[in-house]
Amino acid sequence: MLTAKFDQLVKQLRILPGVGQKSAQRMALHLLTKKRPQGMALAQALDEAMRDIVECQRCHSFSDDAVCPLCQDPRRDDALLCVVETAADVMAIEQTAGYRGRYFVLGGHLSPIDGISADDLNIEQLVWRVKQEPVEELILATGTTVEGQTTAHFINEAVSRHVNKVTRLAQGVPMGGELEYLDSMTLGQAMQNRSFL
Amino acid sequence: MLTAKFDQLVKQLRILPGVGQKSAQRMALHLLTKKRPQGMALAQALDEAMRDIVECQRCHSFSDDAVCPLCQDPRRDDALLCVVETAADVMAIEQTAGYRGRYFVLGGHLSPIDGISADDLNIEQLVWRVKQEPVEELILATGTTVEGQTTAHFINEAVSRHVNKVTRLAQGVPMGGELEYLDSMTLGQAMQNRSFL
Ligand SMILES: [Zn+2]
Ligand SMILES: [Zn+2]
Repeated sequence: MLTAKFDQLVKQLRILPGVGQKSAQRMALHLLTKKRPQGMALAQALDEAMRDIVECQRCHSFSDDAVCPLCQDPRRDDALLCVVETAADVMAIEQTAGYRGRYFVLGGHLSPIDGISADDLNIEQLVWRVKQEPVEELILATGTTVEGQTTAHFINEAVSRHVNKVTRLAQGVPMGGELEYLDSMTLGQAMQNRSFL
Repeated sequence: MLTAKFDQLVKQLRILPGVGQKSAQRMALHLLTKKRPQGMALAQALDEAMRDIVECQRCHSFSDDAVCPLCQDPRRDDALLCVVETAADVMAIEQTAGYRGRYFVLGGHLSPIDGISADDLNIEQLVWRVKQEPVEELILATGTTVEGQTTAHFINEAVSRHVNKVTRLAQGVPMGGELEYLDSMTLGQAMQNRSFL
């Protein structure tokens, strides 16, 4: 609209999730008008992250080095291993600050419809790991979607001979959630699994 | 949270207007997981825009070269000159597709409270231009804020001896509203119904 390089910037900003034409224009104008050094710093951080962040060899989450800080941290409990679908899930659980074990990222969930089978996920590596290492509890924190549940059951079959305890995150009414907006599946489950106050 | 380079990317993404911690994390994970080549293309577009986009020597809008495409376009009408506060306003008016004259960007509005006087804006260059060139109508499309109105009156005083017709955008632009956030319909209408100052 204004110049070729401006248009190019707006077009590229639109690859960011949740950013449409209007907000991309607003971002570009904001950076050009008042934040050029910050814009250049963002460009550099983006480029470095895209080029240098790799998959951790141990947990398959994101890492700057061969093995990520969470896998290297000596204060984490090796006896607890939490299996999640994506690195985003690792981040979500870390933000609760209530978990001190290790993680393992599958890279997705089983989905025959999308052609995603066990070979497309890091399931073989997970089985190998629980065979080699003293994991006492494997927490299957895959999603509560049909695919997430199926994936959890599949992994449970594969590891049950090698791990004592295989658990799943509690299901129920979310904190601060209002019953009337909850789907009846969740609400029914929560009613069945009710506990003493 | 995950790695140093990831944290750095999230931190830098937050300089974008309207992007908080949560959406910056979501953006970073999205790019890393599925869009690395696009992320690198964004980094390059950002870097080039921050480094190479300059102020047009004629209209003071953004430009890749010394003189911008709008100033160079032989199909635009030299007799009409539209004065705006920022390059964002140029873009907003261009998107109405109802104006075929030239532009002049002041670089802001008069604001004694913020210490912005006529010397801080491109007012001298504007007066020089209407003295030298055959501008028949000067459209003062500064904002409808108190500062925008004051700026329009100030410019009117300065140019009235050199220009026949000094106009202002028609009522319809909401009071206190900023041009760049206005819908094109209203803005196009206001341009058509512009009136004498
Ligand atoms: Zn790791
Ligand atoms: Zn220009």
